Amino acid sequence: MPIYEVVVEVWLKDGIVDAEGNSVTEALRDMGYPVKDTRVGKVYRITMEAASKEEAEKLVEEMCRRLLVNPVKDKYLFRVEQR
Amino acid sequence: MPIYEVVVEVWLKDGIVDAEGNSVTEALRDMGYPVKDTRVGKVYRITMEAASKEEAEKLVEEMCRRLLVNPVKDKYLFRVEQR
Repeated sequence: MPIYEVVVEVWLKDGIVDAEGNSVTEALRDMGYPVKDTRVGKVYRITMEAASKEEAEKLVEEMCRRLLVNPVKDKYLFRVEQR
Repeated sequence: MPIYEVVVEVWLKDGIVDAEGNSVTEALRDMGYPVKDTRVGKVYRITMEAASKEEAEKLVEEMCRRLLVNPVKDKYLFRVEQR
């Protein structure tokens, strides 16, 4: 079975205050960097078997919905690469 | 001044045990997914001013070294996009 590597980014939705991101913005500004905004997210690199790229995408969608993402507060995006 | 959006991914180095990633692998396997390995990282989306893309890249390198990345345990990569 082919091996795929999937990178999933999970971000807070735009309307939700990102306290950690705001702290990073403040710290970077205090250091003199011209930063306007920072958002902080999580990123997963999942190595998995799948019959095809389409199958891998289908499985990742499911994993996001069932485990990795909280649909109330999170949004996500992913990319699938064959290894 | 042009505005750039930078996405920085921060990962544990390959030799370092990723306990959170291992938990995710186990959980996904228990749910029936054919997952071989998972690594978990942090991702920052930083909106900033810079005179050019090269200048933005230089500043981000500095921010990584000075704040976002622990060089003992982390590796990182980033992409810069003009907005």
